[in-house]
Amino acid sequence: MDELAFIAALRGLPLHPGAQNLRDDCALLEIGGETMVLTHDAIAEGVHYRPGTDPADIAWKLVAVNLSDLASKGAEPIGVLIGAALIDGSARFVEGLRDVLEHHGVTLLGGDTVRPQGPATFGCTAIGRATTTPVPARTGARVGDALYVAGTIGAAMLGFRAGDGAAYLRPQPLLAEGRALAPLAHAMMDVSDGLLLDASRMAAASGCTASIKLNAVPFPTDLSTDDRAEATRWGDDYALLFAATIDAVLPVPAVRVGTMLAAGEHPLLVDGKAAEGSLGYEHG
Amino acid sequence: MDELAFIAALRGLPLHPGAQNLRDDCALLEIGGETMVLTHDAIAEGVHYRPGTDPADIAWKLVAVNLSDLASKGAEPIGVLIGAALIDGSARFVEGLRDVLEHHGVTLLGGDTVRPQGPATFGCTAIGRATTTPVPARTGARVGDALYVAGTIGAAMLGFRAGDGAAYLRPQPLLAEGRALAPLAHAMMDVSDGLLLDASRMAAASGCTASIKLNAVPFPTDLSTDDRAEATRWGDDYALLFAATIDAVLPVPAVRVGTMLAAGEHPLLVDGKAAEGSLGYEHG
Repeated sequence: MDELAFIAALRGLPLHPGAQNLRDDCALLEIGGETMVLTHDAIAEGVHYRPGTDPADIAWKLVAVNLSDLASKGAEPIGVLIGAALIDGSARFVEGLRDVLEHHGVTLLGGDTVRPQGPATFGCTAIGRATTTPVPARTGARVGDALYVAGTIGAAMLGFRAGDGAAYLRPQPLLAEGRALAPLAHAMMDVSDGLLLDASRMAAASGCTASIKLNAVPFPTDLSTDDRAEATRWGDDYALLFAATIDAVLPVPAVRVGTMLAAGEHPLLVDGKAAEGSLGYEHG
Repeated sequence: MDELAFIAALRGLPLHPGAQNLRDDCALLEIGGETMVLTHDAIAEGVHYRPGTDPADIAWKLVAVNLSDLASKGAEPIGVLIGAALIDGSARFVEGLRDVLEHHGVTLLGGDTVRPQGPATFGCTAIGRATTTPVPARTGARVGDALYVAGTIGAAMLGFRAGDGAAYLRPQPLLAEGRALAPLAHAMMDVSDGLLLDASRMAAASGCTASIKLNAVPFPTDLSTDDRAEATRWGDDYALLFAATIDAVLPVPAVRVGTMLAAGEHPLLVDGKAAEGSLGYEHG
């Protein structure tokens, strides 16, 4: 069973209304007049990081990818629970955890440890507080909206190739940007699996077709023109992709990369044509 | 770095006040006048279940051990987030997840999937709502309190030996009992790692010595006298251990197994003597 079939099977279980039918990166929980935003992402050796990676970088990435999901909902982080594999270099894991928590002003709430019998898997649950209502979902984009990106697309790919990997291993969740954008975003998500794949997911969830112009995408200045197509299919950048009106006054830097059209034959057009091949990182 | 050293290192990080200095099974989060109770436990192949275990039983155990932590705080479960390994038999995993969620009236909030490169690790975060204030912690036992157990000690061991393992693989979190007991429990925890180990932990956290009478422990009727000592060192029963006044009027069946004494040389006495050897299941 692949990931999509598994998630489809999970949709037949008793779901919390805030699970949003498992079609968003976060769950919403209404408590005492507040809306809590919850997300759980796991990362595994050999899948999300290479064997031999500095455990400090594993810890950073583990927390950062979860905070990025909160950022995409405009949520203010409260704390994280960590499911930590006890591996060689756990002291470095704790150092990386300190770095990422202190950098983002987040606290540790608790967790668990497991001594793995093979390649390690780490889990993190991040809990935040919504700062705007409604919380922007994947499903809210409207025909005629502009599609925008805050952050850049391609830095993680360059970092991975260079082998130093700050951008790949130490992504920066755009928490302040997410909070600033949430009130005007009709739909928002982080670009974790590739711009084209994530844009097509937002379009499908919203009943639209996303039309993206490649030369409008905010690539890093050191990305060559030849690498642009690949960079739009590469994940791990943790930029924010959002849909808003074409005349939205943007409170933080973001660039328009396309338009939401009425749903057509394909959920995604790139420079007017249906995108071919893999659009990004499909799990499992 | 073993589990205790790792957790000690985590205590140097920015902790949420509700993390209770990582000395409890759950974290507490005050939101809008409510207290949320949060826990995250992971289970791993070869550690918490045998290779070849029916994935439906893995799913049950994964959720049940987390619900048991909520039970020990008297919390009413709201939902769970699952970090699921995609393994052979994922359809059975979904079936077991349905069983445990429906049995306990709990909903799925969300989660993530990972395709493991070796033995699988599964994570679960359970979220509940406190039903009493203060929420019983490990630290609240008082000198002169009686120590009680709700549930039995040893059924998991018998199930494991028998190989059918309903008690071992499908533990029953005592949610209703926990809610009923929370208002009168000075301290409460679930017996996940062995009665003696968990009692010594409660005693140490509360600054007491726990004195337990072996023949007062509620063993299953089919447990032989010879197995009693081992059963008190065996985990996975998910009974509730709590401290309350000796004249407490118990709202649900529970038996007194001992007394909290002023802190002495050892945190735990069994039949008046310091317990020797391993007290239970020490992780990592």
